[in-house]
Amino acid sequence: MDREQDEKTIRKLVGDIVESYQREPDIIKIEETHRIDPEAVRLIIDDLRALIFAGYFDRRKLKSDSVEYYVGELMERLTYNLQKQIRHALCYGIDCNHCANSDHVEEDARQKTYDFLSTIPALRSLLATDVEAALEGDPAALSKDDVILSYPCIFAITVARLAHELYRLKVPLLPRMMTEHAHSITGIDINPGATIGHHFFMDHGTGIVVGETTVIGNYVKIYQGVTLGALSTRGGQVLSGVKRHPTIEDGVTIYAGASILGGNTVIGKDAVIGSNAFITTSVPAGTRVSIKNFELQFNQDENMGSVELEQGDFWFYTI
Amino acid sequence: MDREQDEKTIRKLVGDIVESYQREPDIIKIEETHRIDPEAVRLIIDDLRALIFAGYFDRRKLKSDSVEYYVGELMERLTYNLQKQIRHALCYGIDCNHCANSDHVEEDARQKTYDFLSTIPALRSLLATDVEAALEGDPAALSKDDVILSYPCIFAITVARLAHELYRLKVPLLPRMMTEHAHSITGIDINPGATIGHHFFMDHGTGIVVGETTVIGNYVKIYQGVTLGALSTRGGQVLSGVKRHPTIEDGVTIYAGASILGGNTVIGKDAVIGSNAFITTSVPAGTRVSIKNFELQFNQDENMGSVELEQGDFWFYTI
Amino acid sequence: MDREQDEKTIRKLVGDIVESYQREPDIIKIEETHRIDPEAVRLIIDDLRALIFAGYFDRRKLKSDSVEYYVGELMERLTYNLQKQIRHALCYGIDCNHCANSDHVEEDARQKTYDFLSTIPALRSLLATDVEAALEGDPAALSKDDVILSYPCIFAITVARLAHELYRLKVPLLPRMMTEHAHSITGIDINPGATIGHHFFMDHGTGIVVGETTVIGNYVKIYQGVTLGALSTRGGQVLSGVKRHPTIEDGVTIYAGASILGGNTVIGKDAVIGSNAFITTSVPAGTRVSIKNFELQFNQDENMGSVELEQGDFWFYTI
Repeated sequence: MDREQDEKTIRKLVGDIVESYQREPDIIKIEETHRIDPEAVRLIIDDLRALIFAGYFDRRKLKSDSVEYYVGELMERLTYNLQKQIRHALCYGIDCNHCANSDHVEEDARQKTYDFLSTIPALRSLLATDVEAALEGDPAALSKDDVILSYPCIFAITVARLAHELYRLKVPLLPRMMTEHAHSITGIDINPGATIGHHFFMDHGTGIVVGETTVIGNYVKIYQGVTLGALSTRGGQVLSGVKRHPTIEDGVTIYAGASILGGNTVIGKDAVIGSNAFITTSVPAGTRVSIKNFELQFNQDENMGSVELEQGDFWFYTI
Repeated sequence: MDREQDEKTIRKLVGDIVESYQREPDIIKIEETHRIDPEAVRLIIDDLRALIFAGYFDRRKLKSDSVEYYVGELMERLTYNLQKQIRHALCYGIDCNHCANSDHVEEDARQKTYDFLSTIPALRSLLATDVEAALEGDPAALSKDDVILSYPCIFAITVARLAHELYRLKVPLLPRMMTEHAHSITGIDINPGATIGHHFFMDHGTGIVVGETTVIGNYVKIYQGVTLGALSTRGGQVLSGVKRHPTIEDGVTIYAGASILGGNTVIGKDAVIGSNAFITTSVPAGTRVSIKNFELQFNQDENMGSVELEQGDFWFYTI
Repeated sequence: MDREQDEKTIRKLVGDIVESYQREPDIIKIEETHRIDPEAVRLIIDDLRALIFAGYFDRRKLKSDSVEYYVGELMERLTYNLQKQIRHALCYGIDCNHCANSDHVEEDARQKTYDFLSTIPALRSLLATDVEAALEGDPAALSKDDVILSYPCIFAITVARLAHELYRLKVPLLPRMMTEHAHSITGIDINPGATIGHHFFMDHGTGIVVGETTVIGNYVKIYQGVTLGALSTRGGQVLSGVKRHPTIEDGVTIYAGASILGGNTVIGKDAVIGSNAFITTSVPAGTRVSIKNFELQFNQDENMGSVELEQGDFWFYTI
């Protein structure tokens, strides 16, 4: 019978997978009490956003006489969920069944949770400057409401600033999970290690990459496709911890598609980096950098429909 | 006790946040009756898509004798949700408790809702041409079903065309929330202000940016990473409303990574813009534009493993 | 009365939409028994990931003595859902009410489901090498856990490898729906037709495009914004099935923003392609390719605030 045959096939498939778990045990998690729950991480991000931009993303109207209750409720849930996930994160790679320091780790998670949450008022002040910078920097922006409700840069920088605090508290794994969630939503990839000043604006944002040891000053503005990266690091893990990414001073503007690379590269105050520039050495303050020798070629094509394409015809392509 | 200590700490954190709301009141919404619900906006987009591409994204089979019922049900929900969110959008920034024009605003929202929904039959005809353009333009496309079910450009252009109608009706905030939702899903950032002709195809799409005052003709094809943007607008809000983005005439193809900038820039009929071109002046009809002076350098590297990297070695990098 | 007026207006709108269905019948699905459910496709992807990276993405702790039960449960659901969606996919475009081969199609779907699921142990071994490659290639990676939990390249390559197996089994539509889901999450667009060797690493990933007939060897590393594409295919559907995309041999590194195009283009073993290079001819093994004539221009700008922008000032722009 088909059904018997099916059951037999499924049993065989199950056996093969279980065998494959034994052969490749490095990409599974078995008997691990402390595992981070990616779903909980997303809930934490939502709750943190609701705490910071209170009233914007909630279904219920926030009333002035219940603000304290609103904050209290979010804070209760956040402390519970954060402490749990931070504790899991701290235990990654440690054999918990034989962990002598269970109480110590719990206390560590508790302390880091409170230390993290106490940074939120200061982060709110920073984020208010980011909203201002977006409104001032983009002629298409209608109002602060427009910026807060719609602009992907606001979600990306909110998560990056929060993740950076956890990164500074030496919580493993969680900060990157948070910024990668924002990366998925916005196309903006900011490593939690990056240090970023106030009034930071990223227009459009898709394809922006900001590396782990980047330092960004105040009033910096960057556009879609900008990379603040490292020079070739064929050393891989050997370079972990070394400053590999640039320093961008106050008031710098970096136009779309530009790449700025290297740990010793400093872009000086108020410099403007032109679109698609590729920079690996420092740039003095107040300098405008652009591509020098860019030339276009114009061909009139009388009968475009019948043109035969060759390999050499290489600027015109599709996928 | 720990619990007492925790309660005290949480109470302190709550107090600090509430205080921060007083210090930074611009990024919260308190006592605001009319707030747009981002979740409702997403539901509206889903319902509009179900109305346009009926039967594709529903779990239930759509039967020919119940089509009217299907449309009627969607329409009931859409009119209710749209009118509510449009009304909220119209009231942003207005103190509702003292609004003398409550009835007038309600009626305005009602009218805009019906005006918007009455554009859908015409939009369906436009979107049918976009599906055709994708099928014809991409050798990897199997069928119209393939295009409608999978192609990110179809979702992006559907939302952009819908949002553009709300933009024309002068509904604030909502149009941009809709296109930014599509941006998040597809990596394609089309401002609701952009005017776009029929048979529009965006292949791959990630990183495409189309600015607010862009005008695009019929049968236009653009690839991933293309920017239709503005020249530097250091004026910020001063430039709001001015035509800052290019005009792309019928039949133009723009290959990956090209940037076309400026409100006076017109790309003439059937022109072809090569990959990575950077264009800020008008291009006559039928012209092929490509980068002229692009040269590559080839080095044989006998022992690549031991090469020491210097700052000057700048084309090879990583993050 | 308003309500009467509303009902009349809605009735008119419904009538117009129904009429538009008759005018544009190509973008709706009516009386179609076999339609793929996009929601089910996402559930299948989640279940396949849970099967491959067991224990990482589940809320419950996976215990060693219940592994077989865990796998069995996933396998039951997967066989049911996959067979159903594959059967739907196989029937697209066929008039099912008059299909004489219903049993044959059902059996075909059953066979393809089991053939597909039997590839998972081998895919797990491949994916373990991808996790290794990411950990080794990125100084910012903390551990295998970090890579599996956070790195978008892992999700993208997991889905691409799974979709490729369905593509090889000639299942229509489903493979592309799967990779486009991953594209939406990660910004990485890999066509299911692409053949990819072991130890494949994509850093950051946003904007990567890998075309249908691309062949990639082992130990290949590519960065954000890389296109492995086709030369101009103005022929459209005529080129369907032809090898249009490049071959990348073992050990090749391709830096950010580079484009490699054409079905006859072969990048030889251990070659390194510099950032933003644009390549349409083959490159010998061991060669380093970089842009030759790239020059920057530095202007000191004494009073940047008052600079008037002209059209010619074209490297500085915004949207």
